[in-house]
Amino acid sequence: MNIICDKSKLIEGINIALKAIPGKSTMAILECLVLEVKDNIIKLIANDLEIGIETTIDGQIIEEGSVAINAKVFFEIIRKLPSDEVTISVDDNYVMNISGGKAKFNISVKPTEEFPFLPQIVKNNNITISQFSLKEVIRQTVFSISDNENTKVMTGELFEVKGNKLKVVSLDGHRISIRNIELKNSYDEVSVIIPGKTLIEISKILNGGMDDDVNIYFTDKHALFEFENTIVLSRLIEGEYYKIDKMLSSDYETKLTVNKKEMLDCIDRTTLLIKESDKKPVIIDIKDDSMGFNMNSSIGSMNEEISAIKEGKDILIGFNPRFLMDALRVIDEEEITIYMINPKAPCFIRDKEESYIYLILPVNFNV
Amino acid sequence: MNIICDKSKLIEGINIALKAIPGKSTMAILECLVLEVKDNIIKLIANDLEIGIETTIDGQIIEEGSVAINAKVFFEIIRKLPSDEVTISVDDNYVMNISGGKAKFNISVKPTEEFPFLPQIVKNNNITISQFSLKEVIRQTVFSISDNENTKVMTGELFEVKGNKLKVVSLDGHRISIRNIELKNSYDEVSVIIPGKTLIEISKILNGGMDDDVNIYFTDKHALFEFENTIVLSRLIEGEYYKIDKMLSSDYETKLTVNKKEMLDCIDRTTLLIKESDKKPVIIDIKDDSMGFNMNSSIGSMNEEISAIKEGKDILIGFNPRFLMDALRVIDEEEITIYMINPKAPCFIRDKEESYIYLILPVNFNV
Repeated sequence: MNIICDKSKLIEGINIALKAIPGKSTMAILECLVLEVKDNIIKLIANDLEIGIETTIDGQIIEEGSVAINAKVFFEIIRKLPSDEVTISVDDNYVMNISGGKAKFNISVKPTEEFPFLPQIVKNNNITISQFSLKEVIRQTVFSISDNENTKVMTGELFEVKGNKLKVVSLDGHRISIRNIELKNSYDEVSVIIPGKTLIEISKILNGGMDDDVNIYFTDKHALFEFENTIVLSRLIEGEYYKIDKMLSSDYETKLTVNKKEMLDCIDRTTLLIKESDKKPVIIDIKDDSMGFNMNSSIGSMNEEISAIKEGKDILIGFNPRFLMDALRVIDEEEITIYMINPKAPCFIRDKEESYIYLILPVNFNV
Repeated sequence: MNIICDKSKLIEGINIALKAIPGKSTMAILECLVLEVKDNIIKLIANDLEIGIETTIDGQIIEEGSVAINAKVFFEIIRKLPSDEVTISVDDNYVMNISGGKAKFNISVKPTEEFPFLPQIVKNNNITISQFSLKEVIRQTVFSISDNENTKVMTGELFEVKGNKLKVVSLDGHRISIRNIELKNSYDEVSVIIPGKTLIEISKILNGGMDDDVNIYFTDKHALFEFENTIVLSRLIEGEYYKIDKMLSSDYETKLTVNKKEMLDCIDRTTLLIKESDKKPVIIDIKDDSMGFNMNSSIGSMNEEISAIKEGKDILIGFNPRFLMDALRVIDEEEITIYMINPKAPCFIRDKEESYIYLILPVNFNV
């Protein structure tokens, strides 16, 4: 192999591939990325078996070839080269020579036989969504996946396509986050569970452009995300997702409209009195046109009141403050509406169009 | 107690006092700061027994008093209050009421009887130095203290005053850092060892202004730093400092003048091939008018050459790359001069006026 390429473009490419490099692995080959120069294309490939990434970069190809190199070592060396141009060659003994300016590195690399290349995916069933929408919808839901591997389905997110609607759902047993997005086109029905960790890594790679599209292809076992020079392949989580429609309700006894930032700041202040191990609820007292927040802990107590517009009954209800904050932080609207039935029933934060629904279970408390 | 003060000024004051709050302590009282309102002054006091801090803030005093409160809880609450003005009062049951805007906190506080107040220091022997010079001299030397508590003297820095000269020295057995500073006035002779940890905390508090002075008072057991609204009291390390003059030498066989940044960047690149546990030297090959850098490790090898101006003999010499980098990073000059005798003798990086001297021991290596 022998190529010459632009340092900044190579760094960009490695940075993308690094998202599929595990922090520590018992298999050294998984800590490697494959540099594949073939058919006039320079490709970087990484695969931690949950998520696989291929990305291409521009460059001048003098000789083709393919080797595996420790991804982090490669990244650090390229990043610190003193020149804008990088020359990479590999000799027959699998020694890679990396040179830029007067700096010359010789690094042992590996053949690619042991490397788990990405499987070929039949590109039938797909949808198209803007990078912006995909990045946003992940941010707005992924916080309420569970990290408990015993309930595997909860560690992923439901992606459900019906016609021109995409519904994304996550839940962890205490709360449900739902986002409904309108797509530009109509598609066949799809219902898959994508691992939350994959989605987090994908959202880091996405530039978030409104005008840049992502094609997502679905098979029985995989979802393939294709955008710009990059493809990301994720395994799907097997099993059936929860029937969330049964858990939703449009009944309410109390409907409250409130300034989101004021509410978020109040709850944030109540958490100052909670030590890490504590599980103290914030007690919310809705009376007339005010919303009061109360916290009592071993450190002390706090209370604060903000104004709100109420329809229906007064209510005194307790919540895990972090769950409320997680939802409020990803809602972009200035004003939000909260629907409650009683102190034991789930509360709903949702907009009229149901473009978002956040269900949060209340917690018991002693007054 | 009952005071009203400006939130931002209070935050600034707590931030200073926090530098003397230990991360974790078995004595809960050390995690507290004392808020003391007396003689028309609002004072914040913290003391972890190595370093003690007192700082005053402006405010409106309605009633005097003095209590101890967990410093981190206090800081977080004040920082997140929704208003610019803070009202603090303490009732007879040692409950502190903190209010700002509509937010009200009630926090249990403690009486100050158990708190280790700072001892009174007789202010005789002192020097004056600008905040800028003190902050700089700490940065330029403190990296080469030892963290080995068995050689206590090495965990501190020598501050030696003779006439209008201040010499600051640190060493760890492998290297010595020396800075010589001219003071505006002449003073009595002083020679004390100040704990490195204290100096690090002080340099965080110093604003670094050229025109802002620090008075440093010395006693047998303490150094007291006085600046703006703050005093910092540090214990001294007992014992005698090393006789460093004997270790210095102006002989050399090779004198090399080189661009500092080029040299630093080269050495930085050699370290990319060192795993954490490794202790691989960078081998420097000085020949004619060039300086070559070589590194060999289990990951691979690297070499790079830069131009340099040499007087005297060629030399091949090995160093711990980190030690060279630490020294180069705190030298502000664009060009530096390095003096070497042979591959087993210490090398010196120093300027003509000896405003700085960095001695670094070479390491053995196999070619």
